[in-house]
Amino acid sequence: MANLTLTTFDWVPPPPRGFVRDLRVRWALEEAALPYRVASVPFGDRGPSHFAHQPFGQVPWLTDGDLSIFESGAILLHVGGLSEKLLPTDARGRVEATEWLFAALNSVEMASLPWTMSKFMGHPTDTAAWKFVDDFLKLRLKHLETVLAGREWLAGSFSVADILMSDVLRVVDGFGGLADSPACRAYVARATGRPAFAKAHADQLAHFAAADKARA
Amino acid sequence: MANLTLTTFDWVPPPPRGFVRDLRVRWALEEAALPYRVASVPFGDRGPSHFAHQPFGQVPWLTDGDLSIFESGAILLHVGGLSEKLLPTDARGRVEATEWLFAALNSVEMASLPWTMSKFMGHPTDTAAWKFVDDFLKLRLKHLETVLAGREWLAGSFSVADILMSDVLRVVDGFGGLADSPACRAYVARATGRPAFAKAHADQLAHFAAADKARA
Repeated sequence: MANLTLTTFDWVPPPPRGFVRDLRVRWALEEAALPYRVASVPFGDRGPSHFAHQPFGQVPWLTDGDLSIFESGAILLHVGGLSEKLLPTDARGRVEATEWLFAALNSVEMASLPWTMSKFMGHPTDTAAWKFVDDFLKLRLKHLETVLAGREWLAGSFSVADILMSDVLRVVDGFGGLADSPACRAYVARATGRPAFAKAHADQLAHFAAADKARA
Repeated sequence: MANLTLTTFDWVPPPPRGFVRDLRVRWALEEAALPYRVASVPFGDRGPSHFAHQPFGQVPWLTDGDLSIFESGAILLHVGGLSEKLLPTDARGRVEATEWLFAALNSVEMASLPWTMSKFMGHPTDTAAWKFVDDFLKLRLKHLETVLAGREWLAGSFSVADILMSDVLRVVDGFGGLADSPACRAYVARATGRPAFAKAHADQLAHFAAADKARA
């Protein structure tokens, strides 16, 4: 029996709330109906014990008994191994969910993160640097649009790949970046319409709201 | 018994030679001493059969019998499952290699790719956009430097995580980005000094050189 504790920050400023990556793990655990505890580490003062679990000083990490796992992709693969609701058990289904999980992080988020950060920080858009960033994301979305126009979920049935891909895409959507990608938009709506997403999202917001209250 | 075919482009222009991502897979297969064939798809005209294997029109993909796998991270996890030379078989070792494999792609390459592309394209460096990109990479390298100052390989012994991390870092190194990260530089030298890297690198260069000859 898994013995799961998810660690996230004790508090974050308002802008990233609803987007901190513990949400990906909460969502997966809610989908699989696996019980878990939530623990906190200081956002402001990240000490050696934090870096021992997450070498880049980020969150989340998940402990399962005496195993401690960082990187949302690695955590979701581990959680997927605990429930076939998240990761098919046949070889082909497992390969498909795994390759799409990597695609979410290394083909799509690698293009979307510079794009969303530029949008967030209001960088000028009349530069060669912006054109590269924008073209890079548009090309990836063009191909993803073709895929998502023909299927409900990336790997046959809903899987950890859909948690990561839709979480990546909803940030782009929030900045209007899916205006020309109706299948991607519908996919984000479909994924985030799931009760497990709503629960995970509400729980993250409540976690940080409780920290505001404790500080007040 | 695995029946492995690695597919890459038939030809690429000179700049990316030695860096096309089939190298990551060649390297892993050479380390594990697994036999494999190399197949080619047109660089210039990417048709439906290409997109059926790699939905973003990229390379590489690997077939293992009737399984076809894209994304270098997913391929390396699969190949790691074929050889304990690449992925430890105990639970803790497997988790460590897996989380570092994701870290190479989603914590380091997500920061390094915008940086190396900006360098390659000669974008101006007196902009807010460049400062963000440069600071993002430097912060990740700072934490990675601490880790690599204390260990030879990321996950105990050499693993697929080291193939991906060192392949990501050597591009940064090529643009002078590891000047202040001596442990990272030493790690890249250590990894790329392995005979399996040399074989994979030479084989990729020979593959594209043969295509030049056929075109001449």
